[in-house]
Amino acid sequence: MSPPALATRSSSPRAPAPPATRGPTCSSTGTTTCSRSIPSNSGRAPFEPVVKPASGDVGERIVARGAVDDKGQVATFLEALRAWKETTGEVAAGVRFTVLLEGEEESGSVNLERFVAQHAKRLGKCAVCLISDTGMLGRGKPAITYGVRGLSYTEVVLHASNQDLHSGMWGGRCPNPISELVKVLAQLWDKDRKISIPGFYEGVRDLTSAEREAWKKLGFDQIDALKKIGMGPEADVGEKGFTALEREWARPTAELNGIIGGYTGKGAKTVIPAHASAKVSFRLVDDQDPRKLTERFFAWCRERTPPGCRWEFIDHSGGDPATVATDSPVLAAARRALKAASGGAEAALIKTGGSIPVAGMLKKQLGLETIFMGFGLDDDRVHSPNEKFELDCFRLGARAHVLLIDELRSMSEA
Amino acid sequence: MSPPALATRSSSPRAPAPPATRGPTCSSTGTTTCSRSIPSNSGRAPFEPVVKPASGDVGERIVARGAVDDKGQVATFLEALRAWKETTGEVAAGVRFTVLLEGEEESGSVNLERFVAQHAKRLGKCAVCLISDTGMLGRGKPAITYGVRGLSYTEVVLHASNQDLHSGMWGGRCPNPISELVKVLAQLWDKDRKISIPGFYEGVRDLTSAEREAWKKLGFDQIDALKKIGMGPEADVGEKGFTALEREWARPTAELNGIIGGYTGKGAKTVIPAHASAKVSFRLVDDQDPRKLTERFFAWCRERTPPGCRWEFIDHSGGDPATVATDSPVLAAARRALKAASGGAEAALIKTGGSIPVAGMLKKQLGLETIFMGFGLDDDRVHSPNEKFELDCFRLGARAHVLLIDELRSMSEA
Repeated sequence: MSPPALATRSSSPRAPAPPATRGPTCSSTGTTTCSRSIPSNSGRAPFEPVVKPASGDVGERIVARGAVDDKGQVATFLEALRAWKETTGEVAAGVRFTVLLEGEEESGSVNLERFVAQHAKRLGKCAVCLISDTGMLGRGKPAITYGVRGLSYTEVVLHASNQDLHSGMWGGRCPNPISELVKVLAQLWDKDRKISIPGFYEGVRDLTSAEREAWKKLGFDQIDALKKIGMGPEADVGEKGFTALEREWARPTAELNGIIGGYTGKGAKTVIPAHASAKVSFRLVDDQDPRKLTERFFAWCRERTPPGCRWEFIDHSGGDPATVATDSPVLAAARRALKAASGGAEAALIKTGGSIPVAGMLKKQLGLETIFMGFGLDDDRVHSPNEKFELDCFRLGARAHVLLIDELRSMSEA
Repeated sequence: MSPPALATRSSSPRAPAPPATRGPTCSSTGTTTCSRSIPSNSGRAPFEPVVKPASGDVGERIVARGAVDDKGQVATFLEALRAWKETTGEVAAGVRFTVLLEGEEESGSVNLERFVAQHAKRLGKCAVCLISDTGMLGRGKPAITYGVRGLSYTEVVLHASNQDLHSGMWGGRCPNPISELVKVLAQLWDKDRKISIPGFYEGVRDLTSAEREAWKKLGFDQIDALKKIGMGPEADVGEKGFTALEREWARPTAELNGIIGGYTGKGAKTVIPAHASAKVSFRLVDDQDPRKLTERFFAWCRERTPPGCRWEFIDHSGGDPATVATDSPVLAAARRALKAASGGAEAALIKTGGSIPVAGMLKKQLGLETIFMGFGLDDDRVHSPNEKFELDCFRLGARAHVLLIDELRSMSEA
């Protein structure tokens, strides 16, 4: 996931507008970062976009790192602004947008919070934030996302000896930091794949039966989704008692995103290394607090410090979960725009397991609600080599934004 | 550990000897490999030896990759051969040696077994194998090693999806191969740090109380050894019921020598990788069979295959454990040589936790016994940056080999 198109309608639309604009002032924000360190796309420079035929004879797709997450999605609203300018001579037909492009989302958005605080006065005039960084329910099935998970991202380094050791002389005689780290991390989950950190589920709300029923009706096919990533039905595992969709949308998770220690080249080397480390992240929901969770995880590790070893903890930050109102007038307008843009398909109300920390941040700092209108598909290979964005989806996104701007103009004129 | 100085006395000493030689024919073998992928030594080219003052005002040391394991130790018997040549005009004073230098021991000696088979006739004439690749009991405390551990070295790769996944969309929805690998590997040990693979301890002989008593008297100080590698007394952990020395010399162990998966660069990346892998090795003792152990470990993994995942197993080979007779005439000769070379100190009879697979191989293929006469110290930083070999130890080694050659000459003449 990457950030946000921030569409703002000032409550007093005309007052601060420059002479050339009509209707509400709006601002849009988006990030241009992509996930780092992904191998090149089939030999090309990773960021170089190419248009290729989509598989299954369904048009074409753009292939490039960040094609859909989030450069391509940012382009959907920039294209809409351009279209209105070409047609009416006014950017966004006079609806006032602030466009904020952020380039650090995939590396923790370390400067965004400070930036938002510094520009709180201007950004605070926004009525709503519009972000295109989420997905559709499927091809031809538009959706609006009303919840994103939060994130707590950490790194733990376990230090043992002050030098690499020979595993012949030392094997069995002192702690091996890889083995010890592995033994600690394996305790993160119980046999039902629930997370074992005490208090971890504090702030997680129970799913209502109404929500479960509504999600069931969305027709999401986990087995088909698994097939697309090369896995069989037996890979449908996760926290016991929840469907795949419930696990992604409504339940927190703990993931090991990286691990390294000792010799990792070709062949054999009989070493006991001095340290081993892992990137450990948690996706959070509802009212879970990422800062509190990070502290709880570090404390949990500390209680399990292997004999003779010491921890080094790194907090790579994260973001709050966010759930937005599903009954606001702007969200209704977005659903109308999506329906018209897609030739009559009703936009589903969905959630996502991804994190868009800026939404929680804007809510907390400025009281601003966000509309997540996104156009990605489940098989877009986000954060993977050969990430793609279907041209059909890209064009639907541009059309939907064009129509939403029209809706916003009407709303301010009403 | 690296290989072997192979000293051979033909049973009919004079018969096959060239005119210029007297006494028994001998051959010496040694390896010149060092452990791979070690960072440079304090900025120098890693293999470039430098002589530096030893810490604690005890002379000087050679610092270089392979300084003691095993280039420096190979040089102890080459220096002895040279000294005899300069003094008597004959290499090794006419005692016949075959010197076999191997360069692949740290990468599994993949060609050695074939080489030994191809030269079985020549090598089979040897009466005994002499290897300098082990350690002393301590500074000024010479020792002969009568047992080395075997080794089974494997790599396991756990494959999940066919592509890297976004941990937001997929976290909690499908298996994460790092988490699953960690959960499997953590089961390798029980709470007493015994290895859980069924049948693993088959072939391990019970320690006799005589051996335990003898080892106790050696005065080995584990707490001091731990201090030298930066660890406190609480790091004295390993299989329950055994002292550190017993664990190293007489008990098998399982070690994770390397682990890698997912994102391991700086900062954060929210990825669930397609696979994760670990280098897993076992040190073996007595009659444990490395080939059988490797199969048992792979079977044990297979039984624990995480849902939807598949294993890839790599056998990096290893070697048999070897325990040699402590009452042979050549071993007695080596003890006399060591005693004289060190100014009267009795050579202790010790074992090592390291592996010198060639010894087991020569025993099995040619029925050849090995004498392990080595000069390393516990703090030599073997397989680590800035590996060193004390000049005192190097010179003791050269002197001991000079005197052993004299002993061998006397034995053949007697």
